[in-house]
Amino acid sequence: MKASELAAVLEGTLEGGDVEIFACAGLEEARKGDLSFCKDPKHVRLVETTQASAVLLPHDWSLGAPCSIIRVADPNRACMQAAAIFAPPEPVRAPGVHPTAVIDPTATLAPGVHVGAYAVIEKGASIGEGAVVEAQVFIGENCRVGARTHIYPQVTLREGTVVGADCILHCGVRLGGDGYGFNNGKREDGTVYIEKIPQLGIVEIGDGVEIGSNTTIDRARIGRTYIGPMTKIDNLVQIGHNVKIKGYSGLIAQSGVAGSTEIGYGCLIWAQAGISGHIKIADGVQVGPQAGVPQSLDGSLKYVIGAPAMSMKDLAAITLAPKMIAKLKAELKEIKAKL
Amino acid sequence: MKASELAAVLEGTLEGGDVEIFACAGLEEARKGDLSFCKDPKHVRLVETTQASAVLLPHDWSLGAPCSIIRVADPNRACMQAAAIFAPPEPVRAPGVHPTAVIDPTATLAPGVHVGAYAVIEKGASIGEGAVVEAQVFIGENCRVGARTHIYPQVTLREGTVVGADCILHCGVRLGGDGYGFNNGKREDGTVYIEKIPQLGIVEIGDGVEIGSNTTIDRARIGRTYIGPMTKIDNLVQIGHNVKIKGYSGLIAQSGVAGSTEIGYGCLIWAQAGISGHIKIADGVQVGPQAGVPQSLDGSLKYVIGAPAMSMKDLAAITLAPKMIAKLKAELKEIKAKL
Amino acid sequence: MKASELAAVLEGTLEGGDVEIFACAGLEEARKGDLSFCKDPKHVRLVETTQASAVLLPHDWSLGAPCSIIRVADPNRACMQAAAIFAPPEPVRAPGVHPTAVIDPTATLAPGVHVGAYAVIEKGASIGEGAVVEAQVFIGENCRVGARTHIYPQVTLREGTVVGADCILHCGVRLGGDGYGFNNGKREDGTVYIEKIPQLGIVEIGDGVEIGSNTTIDRARIGRTYIGPMTKIDNLVQIGHNVKIKGYSGLIAQSGVAGSTEIGYGCLIWAQAGISGHIKIADGVQVGPQAGVPQSLDGSLKYVIGAPAMSMKDLAAITLAPKMIAKLKAELKEIKAKL
Repeated sequence: MKASELAAVLEGTLEGGDVEIFACAGLEEARKGDLSFCKDPKHVRLVETTQASAVLLPHDWSLGAPCSIIRVADPNRACMQAAAIFAPPEPVRAPGVHPTAVIDPTATLAPGVHVGAYAVIEKGASIGEGAVVEAQVFIGENCRVGARTHIYPQVTLREGTVVGADCILHCGVRLGGDGYGFNNGKREDGTVYIEKIPQLGIVEIGDGVEIGSNTTIDRARIGRTYIGPMTKIDNLVQIGHNVKIKGYSGLIAQSGVAGSTEIGYGCLIWAQAGISGHIKIADGVQVGPQAGVPQSLDGSLKYVIGAPAMSMKDLAAITLAPKMIAKLKAELKEIKAKL
Repeated sequence: MKASELAAVLEGTLEGGDVEIFACAGLEEARKGDLSFCKDPKHVRLVETTQASAVLLPHDWSLGAPCSIIRVADPNRACMQAAAIFAPPEPVRAPGVHPTAVIDPTATLAPGVHVGAYAVIEKGASIGEGAVVEAQVFIGENCRVGARTHIYPQVTLREGTVVGADCILHCGVRLGGDGYGFNNGKREDGTVYIEKIPQLGIVEIGDGVEIGSNTTIDRARIGRTYIGPMTKIDNLVQIGHNVKIKGYSGLIAQSGVAGSTEIGYGCLIWAQAGISGHIKIADGVQVGPQAGVPQSLDGSLKYVIGAPAMSMKDLAAITLAPKMIAKLKAELKEIKAKL
Repeated sequence: MKASELAAVLEGTLEGGDVEIFACAGLEEARKGDLSFCKDPKHVRLVETTQASAVLLPHDWSLGAPCSIIRVADPNRACMQAAAIFAPPEPVRAPGVHPTAVIDPTATLAPGVHVGAYAVIEKGASIGEGAVVEAQVFIGENCRVGARTHIYPQVTLREGTVVGADCILHCGVRLGGDGYGFNNGKREDGTVYIEKIPQLGIVEIGDGVEIGSNTTIDRARIGRTYIGPMTKIDNLVQIGHNVKIKGYSGLIAQSGVAGSTEIGYGCLIWAQAGISGHIKIADGVQVGPQAGVPQSLDGSLKYVIGAPAMSMKDLAAITLAPKMIAKLKAELKEIKAKL
């Protein structure tokens, strides 16, 4: 798209060459053919060194640019608009079932459902109105998928899994795997045994939940592993059996929650954090990146960090210990000299 | 199922309304239609506030309940029994090959094997008696799968992988990927090179091993990456090339073992722990959650925690350092005042 | 293969029985039928206790072995040669499209492309000359895959993903999933909202990149998530949206990089390390295993470890704090006694 056409669409004015634009990108990331943006003169250095072919700048920008300029009222907003123009068009997943999908005759598909190539839907499963089941998805027996839920390719739902309405399951999500549960010990003759504990429950996902690529959520030993409404889970997260997440919480990439733990409303679990089993995290608590939470958090701390998880202040004190020790050592030396 | 019918099956007596029961759940998790259980009066609060429609209680329970009661001899046992009744029926994977499975004519299937839709089994692979290969599984050339092993949907076994008998591989397990191995350095002209080291070995899994969803185990550079019998591996675990796990060990979710490390019998590696390459963990050692093990553990410590991994006592001492420092500081102040 | 035949191929001389050899393995891992190797007398203990049927030893080895010996000039090199002989033959992925592959008529396949069973290639996608798309792969709309790139089974490329030439994508890799991006807050009526931020960009992978099993790389919010040439990524790694990795870097298993962070040339991110969003890691920096990097690293430290990431020396000082405190305490006691 010509920069001049873009300027027209974005209600801006073009200065400089009418270059061809193919994509949007941040100032540093941008290269030839990209449109970038800047609204604040404090980032002028990044503008000066950008490889972009054109840059969106506010009307009162007086610092120039090494490329074409499109002046607009709000560069951020204009860039989002332009990005939507250049975005790869979202694939259309029209209602209909691909002829290669293997769907058990006892499964029920509501109107408007899309099922992609090589998807497998087993006995008794039901798919809600307008849901999208992309290529190569596996939906086990008696699963229920809510209306308008979008399941990306190569997701697996083991038998009995329940997914609410308006959910998004990204590629490689695994719902309903057996939890890690074994009885072990020694027999009378001294030999060791390890016996699998049957995992008889299910996974139940509330409405509006989004689950990132390759995240795994185990089925309950008894009852349900429950992910409450509007919870947003990132990639490669592990949720153990019988975990209960009340809702409206976020779990960032590679974090993990061990079995039977309950997470309140509005919590945020940062990347690579780990939460022990059989504990409770109160509503609104944030668990910092890589934190390890060995026991319940009652909300008296709103943010914990470190392992075992503690306040920012307590972690800082540990980090500063060597400095404090050096100081004490010096003082001791002084005292000794005096004695 | 009516509560009265359930009471009959569980050899208990019903008190209160003959409600309809659909599932089992813990006291806190339970909601309308659920059966819950409690055996110990110390949890009476949870009974008082449960949303369950009925609760299993011992014969001598005198504290009442806000719902129907089924009195039984052993509430825990009765609940497990009831859970088995309400559990989603385990899908039947009858012997037979789905017509859409693509199986190379040189592959051999023992009697009683089940192969699901869109599974791919390549040249020279062999599947043992009664094994289950579910839908969309990929089994590469010359793989061997033992008798009664159950492979859930969307597992991939790269060429040459050997899996023992009575194993369970959950959805998304990846066996036999190339290990991370590169030679790099600078050429005489100053340019950098990074060359792939061929990964010529295989993965071999012993009998009775269970591997969780989306766990990855790399093929050996030479020889075998070996997972010994009865080892139980949770979800999202990473096992590097040439690792040897002797057997009867557990690896909890998101833990990782780097290349060429040996783990003894009966070890337990807790969640998110990391074990360096080329070291040995002695039989029976436990590595705590998020621990980082940089060198061999000879078993003189039975449990390690922290990074670098140490005893519980040593980690506690570090955590307590700020408190100790404050105490020393106060004492110093006192001494100074005296001088 | 007979040990004598092997000796001939490896230009060595056989001592002891002409045993049958099936595979190569390290001294400790080896069992009956294996060939092992040792070049250094300091590992004589491992030779003495090996279960191998034959061992490669240097010509001047005078310490014997409990099995057949093949003397060679360079035991390491000879073992690599032998390993190549015994390696499971690499499956041939000849040019051609499996009849079950579902390929949109608008997709373009260059000469020499291999497409496996049940692969799905959508509208407008293009696959470069000699590329291998294995079974059950999903390639979304308008993706571009470079020449000679090898995509193992069950990889998914969401729409618009660009992969360079000579790349390797291992099983279960997920490229182009939506990044974790939500706007949330409270409405005027006090209710909470969580809104998805459209992720309008793509993932772009440079030439010569290798990506390990079940690794996930998110599409950009705007522009590109960029993995520069010759970068090597291990298994179960998470790369957030708009991350830029310049090139020639390594990311070891289970590490994670949060959104919009830039990683320089020649960096090495060790296993389970976590790097915060919106920061920069200078060229050549190494981030140690399990390290947590909260802010930019300008290269003044070449290696960081711990969380928050620091120098080895600083981490050692924290670990040694209890010892230092005990020493100070003893000195204080002495002083007190003197007063």
